[in-house]
Amino acid sequence: IVNTADDFELYGLHISPDLDTVMYTLAGIANPATGWGIEGDTRATLDAIARYGDDPWFLVGDQDFATHILRTHALHEGRMLTDVTLRLASSLGVRMPILPMTDDRVATEVRTADGWLAFQDYFVARRHADEVLDVRFAGIDSARPSDRVIMAISEAELILFCPSNPLVSIEPILALSGVRDAIMASPAPVVAVSPIVGGKALKGPADRMLASKGVEVSARGVARYYEGLIDGIVIDAEDAAFADDIRGAGLAVDVRNTIMGGRDDRMRLAREILDVEWVPR
Amino acid sequence: IVNTADDFELYGLHISPDLDTVMYTLAGIANPATGWGIEGDTRATLDAIARYGDDPWFLVGDQDFATHILRTHALHEGRMLTDVTLRLASSLGVRMPILPMTDDRVATEVRTADGWLAFQDYFVARRHADEVLDVRFAGIDSARPSDRVIMAISEAELILFCPSNPLVSIEPILALSGVRDAIMASPAPVVAVSPIVGGKALKGPADRMLASKGVEVSARGVARYYEGLIDGIVIDAEDAAFADDIRGAGLAVDVRNTIMGGRDDRMRLAREILDVEWVPR
Repeated sequence: IVNTADDFELYGLHISPDLDTVMYTLAGIANPATGWGIEGDTRATLDAIARYGDDPWFLVGDQDFATHILRTHALHEGRMLTDVTLRLASSLGVRMPILPMTDDRVATEVRTADGWLAFQDYFVARRHADEVLDVRFAGIDSARPSDRVIMAISEAELILFCPSNPLVSIEPILALSGVRDAIMASPAPVVAVSPIVGGKALKGPADRMLASKGVEVSARGVARYYEGLIDGIVIDAEDAAFADDIRGAGLAVDVRNTIMGGRDDRMRLAREILDVEWVPR
Repeated sequence: IVNTADDFELYGLHISPDLDTVMYTLAGIANPATGWGIEGDTRATLDAIARYGDDPWFLVGDQDFATHILRTHALHEGRMLTDVTLRLASSLGVRMPILPMTDDRVATEVRTADGWLAFQDYFVARRHADEVLDVRFAGIDSARPSDRVIMAISEAELILFCPSNPLVSIEPILALSGVRDAIMASPAPVVAVSPIVGGKALKGPADRMLASKGVEVSARGVARYYEGLIDGIVIDAEDAAFADDIRGAGLAVDVRNTIMGGRDDRMRLAREILDVEWVPR
């Protein structure tokens, strides 16, 4: 289940950064150097757009454009983002379902000293340099999780919050009407993987965002942030000192190496977490 | 003034084949080998589209996609095709205005033994192999030439019908309400360049289409086809034998080498035709 509150339009094309990163990664074609886009992708289309006088601030490779073109076309024809995503991913050989959190439009906006900014403006154009004073998800009140999302939660054997940014990558999913209830109602254990290791985010602005939100920037802070929703948390060996404290709050704690350097690390960590005997409270 | 009745949508993008060929040619970036597209263009986007399961029948290069993406975006935002075209061409350094014949949608359809086909289906997908039994321009009755088109005709010093296919490239322009009247009302001489040389079209199916329409496939046949509208015609030296006959019908005839092998030939022919002392009847 993937956050779509970062989605935006570029040159009239519907871009879903998180869906694409997950899809390209699972398809084995992701660019490991950048963390986004397709490995070996070229830039002829974007260079030609620049020749027409546009100053590209969001990099889209030629192969990546194909995804956006086909997605946008299908959406304009009235298809749901869920169906479009499943079809695109399936064409790339991805067998596990990648579910957009909703078929409706939700847009993350962050408040900075310069006022409210669209997420990609803050994150990409301004390189997440601004201090984030507040976060909101425009459209969240009228958006609904898709039936497939609710079904996936209720049928899950384990519900895992990946070590993404809690405030802008996980929270939009949780903020959708019915998602928290579905998670609480599910018999499956609910486990988070801490994105904070040694007091820092491994990637991106999660640490600074948590701090300005008044959340302790530590594995313990993450555990508290998700309190009431999770049964356990995976924290890095470097943060082992927090384990007792978190256990004291009633959560199961699994301590291991959570740093993922590449594909092999990701598969190892996923397998290890699946192998833990998680027990719902 | 360029035909837009070949325009169509591909993957939701608005493609204007004739506008693009004229724009790329005048910008000096056209692919001389194909007659369409951009020189040195690559195919990463289209190959990626194929990876998603589509079987591309219309070739679009990566740089070419930039044109279609920006055009489509601007049209969706409510801008007129004329403005969009002028802006794109200007960004490529084209100083002369390229005017779409209309801002409205007109769609050429051809009747074959298999029924009515969309033009690009006939022309590209089926490689213009079918015999064309009839041609129609869907939407032509409600379409209007743009003000810029009528102004260009009325202010012209010379009105030249390029050696394009009379039935599907020139005729849609002439069929627009008000265009014939504007040409007749213009004080400028009106001159056609015959696309038929030695009884054959130099390119494309114009010869077969004229034949099935009952038009003699010769420079004389072209002169007759445009009769009542043109004051003169440029025919190839190979067709000099038709000159007296055409003159007998009251038209000025200019005989010269009309075969254009490349950019230099095109510029030479254009200059030569401009240098002729054309006199309106």
